This record gives sequence, structure tokens and C-alpha cells, in this order.
Amino acid sequence: MERGRDQRIVRIAELEIDPAQLDAYNALLAEEIEASVRLEPGVLMLHAVALSEAPEKIRLLEVYADENAYQAHLATPHFQKYKMLTASMVRALRLVPVTPILMSAK
Amino acid sequence: MERGRDQRIVRIAELEIDPAQLDAYNALLAEEIEASVRLEPGVLMLHAVALSEAPEKIRLLEVYADENAYQAHLATPHFQKYKMLTASMVRALRLVPVTPILMSAK
Repeated sequence: MERGRDQRIVRIAELEIDPAQLDAYNALLAEEIEASVRLEPGVLMLHAVALSEAPEKIRLLEVYADENAYQAHLATPHFQKYKMLTASMVRALRLVPVTPILMSAK
Repeated sequence: MERGRDQRIVRIAELEIDPAQLDAYNALLAEEIEASVRLEPGVLMLHAVALSEAPEKIRLLEVYADENAYQAHLATPHFQKYKMLTASMVRALRLVPVTPILMSAK
């Protein structure tokens, strides 16, 4: 990924989920990711993984085209649904701004 | 990403680099990523980012096709070069196995 005029927003989200609600949370998260990447031109990447040794600890790598795309994402019905339905499931949420070194995939 | 018969190896690497050698480290890492994804059919994704507030702290999201692909990767000249030349730069390295929930990108 180039830097310079790159306006992309890239970050890691670190979440901890109530273990008793983890299956429900994961289903809602997957639904939200699928809709966001399919429907929103400015949502470029949402990669969600769970720590294998502690699956209630979830990490996302998120890439948005720019600040406007990110703000538009927050206002979408699918994100609002996710946020409302998972509010009681999320025990901790930490958003970590990151800068790409190189992101490469097939 | 499907699970079930999925043989992929997915993990996060968390590194801390000597700040005095960070530019050199990042150049070697980018070179290694570029070569790995271009030359190795079994290296499916290498996304490297630095924490914006602490750029010596680096996170990678890595996906290999299977265990054989990962072992082959470790034996390549470009990985061996990276490993040798960065040995004195890496202060800490933690490998965290993860399980995909959903990984989606444009």
C-alpha cells in the first residue's frame, strides 16, 4: 500500500466478548462484515479472527477508503443493527490506529 | 473463509523492533513480504502494520495454505535472508494462532 496521499483509515480492533454469548456475537459480526464489504464501496477490508487459545478475544484488521467512508459506515443500518444487538455482549473494545508497512494477499 | 476441511494456517505475529533500526527492519520486512506472496503459491496473505502511536510495535496477519506451505516458506532464500538480517533488530516476537471468523476484502 502506498503512503503519501493515501487517505485510508487502517486500524486494529481488539475485542473481548462475553463467552456465554460468543456464538451469537460471532454470527452478528460475520453478518455485519459481509454486508459492509458487499454494500459499501468505502469498506475495503474487514478481517476478523479469534485467538485460538481464547476465542472470546477477537481481533479485526479494518481498512476504510477515507474518513468519509468510515463515517458513512457508522451510519449504515447493518452497522447500527450490529452495534445495538452486540452492546451487551462486548466486554471490552480497544481501537488501535495502525500504519501499513506492506499489505499483500493473493 | 470456510472452516471444516480448511487446512489454512492463520496467525498474528506481534513484534517489537529496536527503534534505532526500525527503518532498516521495515524495508527488509516489506522485501520479504513482497517476495513471499509473489513467489510462493502457498503464502496467501501477509499484512504488516505498525501501531501509529508506537511504530516499533508491528503486527502481522498471516495466512498460509497449509502446514506444508508454511514449512516450505521457512526454507526459502528470501525468508532465510530476512531472518538472518533482522535477528539483531527484533527485541520480541510472539506468534498467536488465530481462527478466522470472517475475512473479507475488495
